[in-house]
Amino acid sequence: MNFDPTGIDPLLDKALAAIATRSAFSGFTESGSSRIHGTEKPAAGKAAYEAHLGQDFRLDDTETDFNPAEEVSPFTGKPLNTRYAAADPDRQFAAAEAAMGAWASASVEQRIKLCVEMLRQVDEHGFEIAHAIMHTAGQSFPMAYAGSGANALDRGLEAVAWSWLMMNALPLQAQWQKQIGAGDPVRLAKRWRLMPRGPAVVFCCASFPTWNGYPAMMANLACGNPVLVKPHPTAVLPMAIAVRIMRDVLAGAGFDPALIQLVVDSSDQPLGKVLVEHERAAIVDFTGSARFGSWVEQHAGNRACYTETSGINTVILDGAEDIDAALDSAVNTLCLFSSQMCTSPQTFYVPADGMRDGNGRHLTPDQVEAELIKRIDALAASPKRAASVMGCIQSPTTLSLIDEWTAAAESGRYRLLRRSDGYAHPEGASARTATPLVLGLDLEEGRAPQEEVFGPIAFVVRAADREQALRHAADSARRHGAITAYLYSTDEQYLQSATDAFAWAGAALTCNLTGNMPLNFSAAYSDLHVSGLNPAGNATLAEPSFITGRFRYAQVRRPQAEDADE
Amino acid sequence: MNFDPTGIDPLLDKALAAIATRSAFSGFTESGSSRIHGTEKPAAGKAAYEAHLGQDFRLDDTETDFNPAEEVSPFTGKPLNTRYAAADPDRQFAAAEAAMGAWASASVEQRIKLCVEMLRQVDEHGFEIAHAIMHTAGQSFPMAYAGSGANALDRGLEAVAWSWLMMNALPLQAQWQKQIGAGDPVRLAKRWRLMPRGPAVVFCCASFPTWNGYPAMMANLACGNPVLVKPHPTAVLPMAIAVRIMRDVLAGAGFDPALIQLVVDSSDQPLGKVLVEHERAAIVDFTGSARFGSWVEQHAGNRACYTETSGINTVILDGAEDIDAALDSAVNTLCLFSSQMCTSPQTFYVPADGMRDGNGRHLTPDQVEAELIKRIDALAASPKRAASVMGCIQSPTTLSLIDEWTAAAESGRYRLLRRSDGYAHPEGASARTATPLVLGLDLEEGRAPQEEVFGPIAFVVRAADREQALRHAADSARRHGAITAYLYSTDEQYLQSATDAFAWAGAALTCNLTGNMPLNFSAAYSDLHVSGLNPAGNATLAEPSFITGRFRYAQVRRPQAEDADE
Repeated sequence: MNFDPTGIDPLLDKALAAIATRSAFSGFTESGSSRIHGTEKPAAGKAAYEAHLGQDFRLDDTETDFNPAEEVSPFTGKPLNTRYAAADPDRQFAAAEAAMGAWASASVEQRIKLCVEMLRQVDEHGFEIAHAIMHTAGQSFPMAYAGSGANALDRGLEAVAWSWLMMNALPLQAQWQKQIGAGDPVRLAKRWRLMPRGPAVVFCCASFPTWNGYPAMMANLACGNPVLVKPHPTAVLPMAIAVRIMRDVLAGAGFDPALIQLVVDSSDQPLGKVLVEHERAAIVDFTGSARFGSWVEQHAGNRACYTETSGINTVILDGAEDIDAALDSAVNTLCLFSSQMCTSPQTFYVPADGMRDGNGRHLTPDQVEAELIKRIDALAASPKRAASVMGCIQSPTTLSLIDEWTAAAESGRYRLLRRSDGYAHPEGASARTATPLVLGLDLEEGRAPQEEVFGPIAFVVRAADREQALRHAADSARRHGAITAYLYSTDEQYLQSATDAFAWAGAALTCNLTGNMPLNFSAAYSDLHVSGLNPAGNATLAEPSFITGRFRYAQVRRPQAEDADE
Repeated sequence: MNFDPTGIDPLLDKALAAIATRSAFSGFTESGSSRIHGTEKPAAGKAAYEAHLGQDFRLDDTETDFNPAEEVSPFTGKPLNTRYAAADPDRQFAAAEAAMGAWASASVEQRIKLCVEMLRQVDEHGFEIAHAIMHTAGQSFPMAYAGSGANALDRGLEAVAWSWLMMNALPLQAQWQKQIGAGDPVRLAKRWRLMPRGPAVVFCCASFPTWNGYPAMMANLACGNPVLVKPHPTAVLPMAIAVRIMRDVLAGAGFDPALIQLVVDSSDQPLGKVLVEHERAAIVDFTGSARFGSWVEQHAGNRACYTETSGINTVILDGAEDIDAALDSAVNTLCLFSSQMCTSPQTFYVPADGMRDGNGRHLTPDQVEAELIKRIDALAASPKRAASVMGCIQSPTTLSLIDEWTAAAESGRYRLLRRSDGYAHPEGASARTATPLVLGLDLEEGRAPQEEVFGPIAFVVRAADREQALRHAADSARRHGAITAYLYSTDEQYLQSATDAFAWAGAALTCNLTGNMPLNFSAAYSDLHVSGLNPAGNATLAEPSFITGRFRYAQVRRPQAEDADE
């Protein structure tokens, strides 16, 4: 790879430098604090969000038939009532294809430059989008601003940088000379042109729409493909705002804004399958449930298909230099956004001989469970901290799921280690909150869930020993999918076994991490997100495989003499 | 990309240099002439081929149940009666997976080195394999030695080189540091490991088994994946010989030869679908019919899937500086291996105002047709030249197809411009030969075939004008698939229109080529073969997209302090 500065945009060049070394970098501001931004910009952003409520969200003049989506704020319990134009897949795909020609014919440099500019402009609207994220996804403000803002934009910029790298993998013209038979050698001038695949459909999930949305949109656009963004019907607004901003950048540069369109559907009349199987759809980027993700993978056919779904992320608690710090990290990560992240831990393994530290401290499995619960309780009892860490529950379905699993425990199938209840959100009683439900079981009972259980529902699994725990955790990742795995141990040999086991299972492993960083923080330019080696998805953010399927080469050969005449 | 010399193998380094500039290179000898090789080596190769006839072809000691495949020499009409062990997919996939661990754990350098060595050893057996190709695929000796030998090995080496490049796209370890909250920064040591996807199924076609087979095998092996080679039941021997040679190289280096296995099936009991849908299959490389290729694409699901099928390759005859030279090239390419190549032209468009040269010479459509026929007749009348160019017909089915299309002409649907008959092959009357059948039609009649018509069956289509011809040819490529398109014109504006039209249609265009090189010669390291933009397949030989899906990354993160202690 040539990670040298391009001169196209300083942000791009910094991203390329970070990718080359996998070092920490952010092209955007991660903090939404007024100490950085002052008070005016945050207030204006909030007001801009509020101005969308109850209004038509118009993207172009031809739109008709505006209707509210299914957006209800997890903070206030009130519907947003923002109205979006009715989807019309045939018309929208046709408009996308019509827009594609000029975009694909623009230089790679121009496309890349505009992609970076789109990200920059979206960042300018960071507060507006953060409020839209809060009131659809339910994220706390800090997460909405950083995780759905800067971190997501960084993933987008990373995708632009990789698009640049891959589109420069080959020279686009060559002189070729070969002696064939008698006489003069054959002399050919060869030229290649980068061609888009065609319209891309980008599905965005409900709880974290931008983080996968931006990189997919950017990779597709950078490679010349128009994008139809299909947000989850309960979390449309953040993507609608981003789409509008990006369209404005394109239109300002003289391109057809139909290169980015919004397709709003509903639970009653979902359009996902229609979009994936549409004859004009050439690329599908899906983030969402494992069930629909699997359907997409099976039905994408010859379309380029990138998925991120979900799986069972595990934590093995074998030992730690500092057991308290380890359990702090484990619990904080469990509680982060109420386990509504694709990297949230679900299953905690405790070997029968408990956890040990380097100084002779020993916790029995009972004590490990008690320490976990104690930490959750402490967080739940601190409404301000809980609000910042846990945020709200995106979907009422998650509350039902908590009830179901509570009932399963009450029926005796699991030990009910901790009930879930709401915590007192500082913004009022209407906030949909839920602290983690914790269920206990013995591995031998065979009742460990075989799929993701979405939301703040954790399982503490007692294993006969740490080897059994590792075997089960890795096997679970391999069979049912997992994006991440976490492990605490002071035994180097065991750590190496685990490194090997999770590598083959395709779960990104984080060992012995304590301190301020959530275990599941996945850093753009550095961490590779989703391995493609288990059922949790096939799209890695970001390395070449995330890009190469999005453009192709057209070749033309002519005698060199003719070419020289041009 | 870093195309710098690796020091692993001089052949690899030369391949990388050629890829970087897309210049002409061959790592192997393209001529099988005794002036280069002497007489002993060719004779020994022929004898080695003959020694396989009527014998068990044993690859390992555990094989049982040997049976002949469906191999009948197109040259002699006699069955080869070489017997191969019965396929056992479950056992073979299990053996492949068992072999994978040690291979995937070997260094990239070691795998790459052994891949190059495999190609070198296969080349050492070039004469033996050329005879096996002749007597299964029906290729002439020169083509069998060059096209199925050196050219195919070059495509294999190109795939190895790209595998090297892509596996070196990212650093595999990094120190990462970020200030998060108060206190010390977070310091993480990150490591990545390249992981194979899993067993790959490589389908080889009947008429050109090695040319796509080698690159697929090499890309898979280089990236750590075991390979199950499924040759066409009528053309097993060339791949069996190559598989044995490669296994010997692996075994000699201490690896399990089950990394490369042969799966022989039959027309009555085909195993293609079983292999593609096998739960252990992770990668599918398919070369063959459009119909089965489409099935593979639809059923590969989340497996990495690479296809090359077929389409309608066209020639537009608008004009030429030297009309005779242009028609010579067109006819020679049509006749080459009796149009049994995926790049063979099928449809020749002649505009109503005929062909013009730069000096006022003008041929009417009638005259163009006559000139084409005259050249085919001349070649057919020269048995030695015909044998060298046309070779034999691989499958009796092709003769039936010629009969069907002759009947279609006799029924009045087409003008019968030239009947197909056998030519007198110098090696005897048993050789299955067929000169091109040529049918004429007017574009307006709407009877141009909408799919590949395999073998020496050509259509001369009269168009109202060259614009109509171009529209139809490009549309045909886009809708029905095409790997190549050929065009002769002296009008620069028309050439530019055609360049644009075929770029969007995804057919690699060759303009105004005359002389010794067949129009459809696709040079490794330089020409990109199959665009992925139309139904003729999705696998481009070779650029990054041919490689990136074949391996993935496993990540592990640990506090830096621990890593430093290791």
